[in-house]
Amino acid sequence: MNIAIVGIGLIGGSVAIRLRETKFADKIIGVDKNEVNQKKAIQLGLVDEIMNLDEAISQAKVIILTTPVDAILELAPYILNKVKDQVVIDMGSTKINILHKIDDHPNRGRYVAAHPMAGTEYSGPEAALPNLFKDKNMVYVDAFNSDEDAFELADSITDVLEMKSIFMNAEEHDMHTAYVSHISHLTSFALALTVLEKEKSQGRIFELAGSGFESTVRLAKSSPDMWTPIFKQNRENVLEVLKEHIKQLQNLHDKLEKEDYEGLYKLIKKSNKIKRIIK
Amino acid sequence: MNIAIVGIGLIGGSVAIRLRETKFADKIIGVDKNEVNQKKAIQLGLVDEIMNLDEAISQAKVIILTTPVDAILELAPYILNKVKDQVVIDMGSTKINILHKIDDHPNRGRYVAAHPMAGTEYSGPEAALPNLFKDKNMVYVDAFNSDEDAFELADSITDVLEMKSIFMNAEEHDMHTAYVSHISHLTSFALALTVLEKEKSQGRIFELAGSGFESTVRLAKSSPDMWTPIFKQNRENVLEVLKEHIKQLQNLHDKLEKEDYEGLYKLIKKSNKIKRIIK
Repeated sequence: MNIAIVGIGLIGGSVAIRLRETKFADKIIGVDKNEVNQKKAIQLGLVDEIMNLDEAISQAKVIILTTPVDAILELAPYILNKVKDQVVIDMGSTKINILHKIDDHPNRGRYVAAHPMAGTEYSGPEAALPNLFKDKNMVYVDAFNSDEDAFELADSITDVLEMKSIFMNAEEHDMHTAYVSHISHLTSFALALTVLEKEKSQGRIFELAGSGFESTVRLAKSSPDMWTPIFKQNRENVLEVLKEHIKQLQNLHDKLEKEDYEGLYKLIKKSNKIKRIIK
Repeated sequence: MNIAIVGIGLIGGSVAIRLRETKFADKIIGVDKNEVNQKKAIQLGLVDEIMNLDEAISQAKVIILTTPVDAILELAPYILNKVKDQVVIDMGSTKINILHKIDDHPNRGRYVAAHPMAGTEYSGPEAALPNLFKDKNMVYVDAFNSDEDAFELADSITDVLEMKSIFMNAEEHDMHTAYVSHISHLTSFALALTVLEKEKSQGRIFELAGSGFESTVRLAKSSPDMWTPIFKQNRENVLEVLKEHIKQLQNLHDKLEKEDYEGLYKLIKKSNKIKRIIK
C-alpha cells in the first residue's frame, strides 16, 4: 500500500518511521511545501519519494495530514474533492472548524479525524522519533461520520503506532485539549517571557534554574508555526481556559498579598489532588 | 565526625545518604518533630540515631538545617545561642529574613547559608535520593559573613554531594529563586486548580493529558508545608514575579481575543529564546 504523508515534521516523520519499521507501507510518499524539509525527509530515510500533492493523491491509498492546523483547513476540502476510495487521516490538534468545513462534502466518509496525544517541544523531520506514539492515546473525533472501511484502515495504522483508541465528539475534543494541552503551552510561553524579560536587568538569573523550572518552561521551545494556528482554531476554548487560569493565579497572588497564609496553604493542598491523575 | 540533620525529608534524607556512602560522617543524628518521619528515617537507614535538638547540638560538629523555612527562622538563633566551634549549615530556599535575624549574633560566623538547587515534587524521608544533588549548583549566600573554617567545612560537604559552588548575596538569591523556582511552582499549582475545577463538569478531561501537561503540572504535587513558608518568606519577590507573569499571560490572552495572530506569533517566537538557556 502506498501512503502519503503531508507535512513531514515531528508527527508525520514519526508516523513514517513506524510505517517503514512494520512494513505496513510499500511506499511512503512525502509532501511538504518546505524544500529544506523535503531534502531532510529523504536524507533521514523517512520517505521514499517526494511528490507534489496532486501526484501523491493519485498514487496513495492513504493520505495522512500532519501539517499545522491552518493548512489542514485548506487541504481537507481540496483533497476530498480528488479522492475516490482513498482514506484521508487528519492528525491535527483542533477539530471543530475543520470538520465543520467538510460536513456536507460528498466524500466526508473517506475522512477520519484523529489526534495522536503525543509530541515533544521539537519540530521538523529531524525531531521524528520511532516510539513517539507507543502506549499513548489516539483520539478519534466524530468517528461515526467516517465510512466503516475508512475507519478500519485508519485504526490499523493506530495499531501500527501501538496506540490506544478513544472516542469523542469535536466539541469535547477541542475543549479538553484546551485544558490539558493548549494551556500548558501558553503557561510555558508566558513563563519564558517573564524570565527572559527579567534577565535583561539580572544577567545571572538562569544560574539558579533547576529541573523544576526546566520542566515548566520546556514547552516554550515549541514552534510558533504549529501553535499560532492551534490557538486561532481553538480560540474560544483557549480564551476560556486562559481566563480561568489567570483567575487562579490572581487568587494565589491575592492570598499572598493579603498575607492570608491559611488560604494559600489550602489552595496548594487542593492543587495536590492532581496526584490522583499524575502518578 | 558527628553530623546532625534537622528535618529528615527529601533534602535532609538525600544529604544523609551521601554522608553515609562516602563515610564522611561517623554518626548521623536525625532531628525531626514528626514522629512518623523519625521512624521512617531509622527504618530506611538514613540516620543512626534520633535525638532531640539540644542533645544533637551538644554531640554534633555540624548541624544541617533542612526543615521548612519558617522553622529555620526560629531554629537559627536558637541553635547559634548554643554552639561553640560547631558549624550550622542552612539549606533553606529563602535567605533575606533568616540572615537578617542573625545578623548581629555573636556566633554569626558559625552559620553558613547555602541553598542546594535540587529537588523533586516529593517530600518526606522516603523521597530521599542518592544522586539528588550530583552536578547541581550549591548557592552560598553572603558567604563573606561565615568564618573561614566554618565555610571550608560546609564546602567539603558540598564536595561530598558532588555539587558546584556559586556565590550570591541574599537579595540576589531571593529574587533569582523567585524567578526560576518559586514562580514555576505557582504556575503548576494554578494549572492544577484550573483543570481540577473543569473536571467537575467534564469528567473525561484527563484522558487527553499527555507528557506536556504532566511536565507543566507535576510541581503541583509539592508539599504545602514546604511551600507556604517559602512564599511567605519571599513574599515581595514572589508578588513581583507573579504580577509580571499574569501580565504576560494577559498579553497572550489579549492578542488572541483581538485576533492579532501576528502579535501572538511574535510573542511565541520571542519565548522560543529560552532555547538558549534550556538545551
